[in-house]
Amino acid sequence: MSCLFCKIRDGESPSYKVYEDDHTLAFLDINPVADGHVQLIPKEHAQYIEELTEEAAENLIKTLRKIVPLIQRAFNATDSNIAINNGPNAGQIIPHVHIHIIPRPTRVGSPFFSSVGRFKPRKKEYFVEMAEKIKKEIDAI
Amino acid sequence: MSCLFCKIRDGESPSYKVYEDDHTLAFLDINPVADGHVQLIPKEHAQYIEELTEEAAENLIKTLRKIVPLIQRAFNATDSNIAINNGPNAGQIIPHVHIHIIPRPTRVGSPFFSSVGRFKPRKKEYFVEMAEKIKKEIDAI
Repeated sequence: MSCLFCKIRDGESPSYKVYEDDHTLAFLDINPVADGHVQLIPKEHAQYIEELTEEAAENLIKTLRKIVPLIQRAFNATDSNIAINNGPNAGQIIPHVHIHIIPRPTRVGSPFFSSVGRFKPRKKEYFVEMAEKIKKEIDAI
Repeated sequence: MSCLFCKIRDGESPSYKVYEDDHTLAFLDINPVADGHVQLIPKEHAQYIEELTEEAAENLIKTLRKIVPLIQRAFNATDSNIAINNGPNAGQIIPHVHIHIIPRPTRVGSPFFSSVGRFKPRKKEYFVEMAEKIKKEIDAI
């Protein structure tokens, strides 16, 4: 068992969780592109989105549609970039399906979000603050 | 009715279609980031993914998982970038949900695809060739 996201799912590696249910888990990206950058994963392990079972894929999208507006709201945004790097050639680093959710309270320069501005891990306090903002919206539903 | 993607759906605006069923439609991006850059849309009109009906969202993901490996195969790729710009602040230009699918036969430099390298429309022959490559794989299933 060497998959980092499986370890996070199993509580064997730490993460700043913002949402969890029986089929999915969401936590902060540790190298965020912007405040509120979240990773959403299926609990079922698969590297590629086309390899997930239909049930896992459906639950993943169900959670995506549930938490996207809440993450947006937590950062006073109505918009967000949502992206899957499907395989290493596309920039996938952890070989477990994950959906990047990046709230966009202001207009981004490029039609596509890029790694420009991706900042290094800050102190724990930063992540705790970001996670609290999101969980506040999620707990309110 | 001023939505370009609704017009494409209704056959009132031209497009290079690569896939269509009762609920979804896929066609070439006219300003591709890379060869094989496809837009997948729900036939149901909504600007934001969270505004789609559950049925439309489920059908959208069903088609996504069906065509992603075929688009990848058409360009000798196993990988792809998959992205939704959810709202204008995130770079959404046409206010109708669309999923970018960009096959990646070789490794991209950035973990996220960017607008760098986005090229202007080429001749019709280029798009016909790209669409044929994809349709060949889709027709083979």
